Amino acid sequence: MHPYRTHTCGELREADAGATVRLSGWVHRKRDHGGLLFIDLRDHYGITQLVLDQGNPHLAEAERLRPESVITVTGEVVLRSHDTVNQKLPTGRVEVRVRELVVQSPAEVLPMQVAGDAEYPEDLRLTYRFIDLRRERLHRNIMLRAQVIASIRRRMIEAGFTEFQTPILTASSPEGARDFLVPARLHPGKFYALPQAPQQFKQLVMVAGFDRYFQIAPCFRDEASRADRSPGEFYQLDFEMSFVTQEDVFATIEPVLAGVFEEFGNGRAVTPPPFPRIPFDQAMLEFGSDKPDLRNPLRIKDVTDIFAGGGFGLFARAIAGGSVVRAIPAPGAGGRPRSFFDKLNEWAREQGAGGLGYIIFEGGEAKGPIAKNLEPERSERIRAAFDLGDGDAVFFACDKPAAAAKFAGLVRTRLGAELDLLERNAFRFCWITDFPMYERNEETGALEFSHNPFSMPQGGLEALNTMDPLEIKAFQYDIVCNGVELSSGAIRNHRPDIMLRAFEIAGYPASEVEARFGGMLNAFRYGAPPHGGSAPGIDRIVMLLADEPNIREVTLFPMNQKAEDLMLGAPAPVPPERLKELHIRLDLPTPTVAEAKRG
Amino acid sequence: MHPYRTHTCGELREADAGATVRLSGWVHRKRDHGGLLFIDLRDHYGITQLVLDQGNPHLAEAERLRPESVITVTGEVVLRSHDTVNQKLPTGRVEVRVRELVVQSPAEVLPMQVAGDAEYPEDLRLTYRFIDLRRERLHRNIMLRAQVIASIRRRMIEAGFTEFQTPILTASSPEGARDFLVPARLHPGKFYALPQAPQQFKQLVMVAGFDRYFQIAPCFRDEASRADRSPGEFYQLDFEMSFVTQEDVFATIEPVLAGVFEEFGNGRAVTPPPFPRIPFDQAMLEFGSDKPDLRNPLRIKDVTDIFAGGGFGLFARAIAGGSVVRAIPAPGAGGRPRSFFDKLNEWAREQGAGGLGYIIFEGGEAKGPIAKNLEPERSERIRAAFDLGDGDAVFFACDKPAAAAKFAGLVRTRLGAELDLLERNAFRFCWITDFPMYERNEETGALEFSHNPFSMPQGGLEALNTMDPLEIKAFQYDIVCNGVELSSGAIRNHRPDIMLRAFEIAGYPASEVEARFGGMLNAFRYGAPPHGGSAPGIDRIVMLLADEPNIREVTLFPMNQKAEDLMLGAPAPVPPERLKELHIRLDLPTPTVAEAKRG
Repeated sequence: MHPYRTHTCGELREADAGATVRLSGWVHRKRDHGGLLFIDLRDHYGITQLVLDQGNPHLAEAERLRPESVITVTGEVVLRSHDTVNQKLPTGRVEVRVRELVVQSPAEVLPMQVAGDAEYPEDLRLTYRFIDLRRERLHRNIMLRAQVIASIRRRMIEAGFTEFQTPILTASSPEGARDFLVPARLHPGKFYALPQAPQQFKQLVMVAGFDRYFQIAPCFRDEASRADRSPGEFYQLDFEMSFVTQEDVFATIEPVLAGVFEEFGNGRAVTPPPFPRIPFDQAMLEFGSDKPDLRNPLRIKDVTDIFAGGGFGLFARAIAGGSVVRAIPAPGAGGRPRSFFDKLNEWAREQGAGGLGYIIFEGGEAKGPIAKNLEPERSERIRAAFDLGDGDAVFFACDKPAAAAKFAGLVRTRLGAELDLLERNAFRFCWITDFPMYERNEETGALEFSHNPFSMPQGGLEALNTMDPLEIKAFQYDIVCNGVELSSGAIRNHRPDIMLRAFEIAGYPASEVEARFGGMLNAFRYGAPPHGGSAPGIDRIVMLLADEPNIREVTLFPMNQKAEDLMLGAPAPVPPERLKELHIRLDLPTPTVAEAKRG
Repeated sequence: MHPYRTHTCGELREADAGATVRLSGWVHRKRDHGGLLFIDLRDHYGITQLVLDQGNPHLAEAERLRPESVITVTGEVVLRSHDTVNQKLPTGRVEVRVRELVVQSPAEVLPMQVAGDAEYPEDLRLTYRFIDLRRERLHRNIMLRAQVIASIRRRMIEAGFTEFQTPILTASSPEGARDFLVPARLHPGKFYALPQAPQQFKQLVMVAGFDRYFQIAPCFRDEASRADRSPGEFYQLDFEMSFVTQEDVFATIEPVLAGVFEEFGNGRAVTPPPFPRIPFDQAMLEFGSDKPDLRNPLRIKDVTDIFAGGGFGLFARAIAGGSVVRAIPAPGAGGRPRSFFDKLNEWAREQGAGGLGYIIFEGGEAKGPIAKNLEPERSERIRAAFDLGDGDAVFFACDKPAAAAKFAGLVRTRLGAELDLLERNAFRFCWITDFPMYERNEETGALEFSHNPFSMPQGGLEALNTMDPLEIKAFQYDIVCNGVELSSGAIRNHRPDIMLRAFEIAGYPASEVEARFGGMLNAFRYGAPPHGGSAPGIDRIVMLLADEPNIREVTLFPMNQKAEDLMLGAPAPVPPERLKELHIRLDLPTPTVAEAKRG
C-alpha cells in the first residue's frame, strides 16, 4: 500500500464500501461526540469524513490534533446511515473507519481559520498566504485563474499562434510608465529594466518573420497599486499578427475571449462574435466614456439643437457660449420621489457640475423646473428622441463638449445603477475603434499623441501630410467588457518614413526619435511586415469571471498595497558588499528632525 | 480580396492552378534571366516562386527590390513545366504570375544574408537578431523550442498538474547563487530579488494545499555565462507534488520527458520508462561521474584487489598507501597503433594524472608495460572481469578513490569517443539517486551539506540522531540525458524538527536557520504535506533535441556572453533623477592611472 494514499479525499463513493483505503490530508474540522470522533479530512480534491470509535487506540491522539495538522489514515470505507448522508459532498455517502493514524505534520495554533467564512485583515492574510490559500474561495479563484490561462493557451495555439518567451532582463521601454531597474554587475553604472510589456519584442518577432505570436506575459511597472493592478507585476495575453487588418485582429481574438468567458462564465450570457465596434467619437457621445458598460441599456443623445435659442435660458446661453447639452434617459424615474432627484442633484454638484437638470413626463406633459421654461414642442422633441412615455424622465448635462460627455457618462452609469437597469449575469463586449491620433494639450496648446505613438495613422503618410492632425484617426482599438478595459491594441506603424513624420507633427525632431526608438526604427529598415495585435489583461479577465473586485483575490502570492511581500519579507536590506559588487550605494532620504530624534 | 494575402507562401498546390491569389512575404532570392525575373517569396509558412515576364509593368521595380524587402503580389497560379518542378518545396509544382506588386517595406542593404548558409560573427547576429531569426536553422530551432514547451504543458496538464505563476519580484532566495537585485522605490534602502528558482514558492504552493504544481518558470542568476546557461535568465519545468515518494516523482515525470523526446526526436531512440536508477556511489564507480552518458557502453570496474600485493609494484605500493585502481575496458583498442596509446598517455598527463597504464590482450596473452610485471593469473582475472578477448585492451586509473573515480570517468568518455562506441541517434536517460547528505570539507575538515540542505535525509530524524553523517543518504536525485544533467530534485524536508537537526549537524545553530530560512520553517509549522519534485531545464532539453551546443541557438533574444542585449542596448545608463528616486547612487570603480590617462 502506498505510504501516503490510495485515494484522494474527493474520490471515495458508495462502490468503495468495504475497501481498505489510505488517505492523507489536512484536519479540516473535528466533531467530538464524547468518545466518537469525526474528522473532516481535506485535500486539494475534496473532503472525506473519518470516524474514530470509542476504544480506537488512536482516539486520544486524534482528539489532541489541532486543525490543519497533516495526517495519513488507513481504514475501511463504510456506508453512512441514511440520516447521516451529506448530500453536499461527493463523498458524503461514505466515511472511513480509521484503523491506523500517522501524524505527518502537526499544526501549531493557527493565526487564522481555514474552515468557515471568518474575515481576516489583509496583512494577516498575506503574511500567512499559505494558510489563506487553503480556504475555499481563494483556492477556487486561484484554480480558476490557472484554468483560464490554460484555456487561453489552448485556444491561441488552436488559432495558429505560437507562444514565445521574450526577455525579462531587458532595456528600458518607451511605454512611459516607470520601469523597475536592475543594476548590471558586469557593467558598472548601467542598468537593465524589467519590461513594462513585451511590446518591442513582439514587434521584433513579427519583423523576424514569425507570423502569429502570443505570450502569457509577465509585465512590470513601478507604479502605485490599484484595485485592478498589482504593485509590481501583472500578466497579459500579449499577441501580435503579421499581414493583418484591424478586422483580422478582431475576428481572431473574439472567439478566444468569447470562448473563455463561455467556458468559465457559469451560464452567464456572453456577447457572441462579432462584438460591436463603436468608434471613439460615438462612444464619447452615447456613453460618455471610451469604456462603456453595455449591460447598461441607457444611451446618451446630443440635444444641443433642441435647447439652442429656446426658452430655458441657462442652457440657451451656455450653448451660445460653445457648450453642448447631452440628454440621458431615465425610464421609470418619473415615479420616484422628489428626494431621488434632489440626491442626484447633490451628487452632481459633488462631481463638479452645476447641478443635474431633468424633465419628467407625466400625464402627457413635460414637468419640472426646465420644462416650466422650455417650449412644449421642444420638450416633445426630447421625449420623441428617446421614445419616452408617462412615468419616464430625462436628465441633462450642459457643458463644453468634453466635460459634458464625461459628466453625461457618469450620469448614465449612476442612473443605470439607481434604476437597477443593468443586465444581470452577462459579459458584454465591445471594441472602441478609431481613436484620434493627436489631441491638443489644453494648457500648452501643443499637439500631442492621444494614445500610442506607434500606431498606424489611418490614411498613412498621405493623411499626415494633408489632413488636420486633429482629424486623423489611428488604427487603434480597445476591447472593453462590462465597462472594464481589457486592453489597448493597434495596427502598428511599421514604416520608418511614416513614423518619423508622425513624430514630427507631435514636435519631435528625427534625431530625438532615432535616439529614443532607434532599435525599432532600425529593425523596420530591413523589411518589416504590416502587423498588429493587442494584449488583454489576464488579471482583469479572471477578476471579471471570479466576480472579485480586488486583484489580490485572484493572484497566488500578491504583494500588499505598499508593494511588500509580507510572507517572505521583500523588499529587504542587502549587505553592503553586495551593493559594492553592483557599483551602487544607498542614497537614503535625510531623516526629519522628528524622525532623527525617534531613531 | 484581402489587402495582404489570400494564401500563405507555403500553401499553394497544383489544385490551385488557375486561381487568382494574393501573397505577402519577404523577397528571399531573385533570379534575373534577362527580362524574366523569378522571386522566391518567403513567409513563416514556406516559399512560393513568383514570375515576372518581359513586359510586366512591375518588372523594373521588382528588379530593383533588395532581398528581404516585404512585398504583396497578386497574380495567377500556374503549373510549372515538368523540368522546372522543384521537388524540395511543397509549393514546387506551381508558381505565381505577378499582375500587381505593392512594396510594403523596402529593405536597406543587409548586414547579413538570410538565404544561404554563410556564417556571421555572433555579435553581428545578436545585433541584428530580427534578421538572424529569419534564417532557416534558427527559425526552426525557435519553433522547436515553442513546440516543446507547448507539448510539455499539455503533458503536465494531462498528468493532473496545474500551472501557477509565482512572483518574479520577490525576496532573496537561499539557493546560493548570486541574485539580481531590484531597488524598491517605495522602501528606501531595500531591494527585491529576482528568483533563482521558484523553489520556496513551489513548496509554499504545496503547503497551501494545491496538489500538483508546475510552471515553465523563468529563473534568474547573476552568474557567468556558460554554453548551456544564458547570462541572466533561463527556463525550467518546475514541478512539485504532495504526498509522494521518490518513485512517484519518477513515475510521473518519466512519461512526460520520454514523450517529449519521442515527439520531437525525429526517430531517435528514447529510453522507455522506467528509466534506470543508478545510486550515486555506483555512478561514481561505474561511470566516474554523476552525469553518466549511457550511450557510452563502457563500464568502469574496481580492480584494486587484483593489483593489491601484485607484481606491478607501482600500483601495489599505491594501493598499500590508500589508493584504488579502476579499470576501463577498451574493446578493439588492441589493434590500434602505438601512437594511440602514447597520445592517450600524454592526454592523461595533461589531466594531471601520472599517466595512463594499460594491458593489451593479444594471442591469448596480456601485453604491455604493466602486463610485463603483473602475474599472468592477475591479468587473466582482469580480462575475465570484462570478458575481453584478443584485440581488446583495458586502461587503469590508480589514485585516491575520489580522484581515481573522476579520472576513470574522463578515460571512459575519451575512449568512448576515440573508439567511436557511442550509440547513435539515441537519448539515454537515467536517474542518479541516493546522494550523500553530507560530505567532509577536505580543507577545513568540517561536515557540509553535499547538495541541497532542504532534502529529506533517508531515515529521517532517527538517521540524523544515530548514523555517521557521512553514511546518510538524501532523497535527492538528478535526471541525466546523454551525459547532460537536466535537473536536480528531491523529496523535501517538510519537518522543522528534522530540518533544524540536519542544519545542526552541518554546524548551523537554530537561531541562524530561523534567521535565514524562517519563512519556510514558519510555513511548515501549520501543517505541511510530505512533498517533492524537480525542475528539468527547458533550454537544455531543447539543446539536446535541436542538437545545438550553444544555448543562444535555441533562445529567441539571448544576451551575449557579456550579458548585453546588443539589439535594444541593455544594460544602459540611467538618468541621475531616476537613481535618486530609487534611493541609490553610483559607486563606480576608480579608474586605474592608465585608464584615467586614456579617458
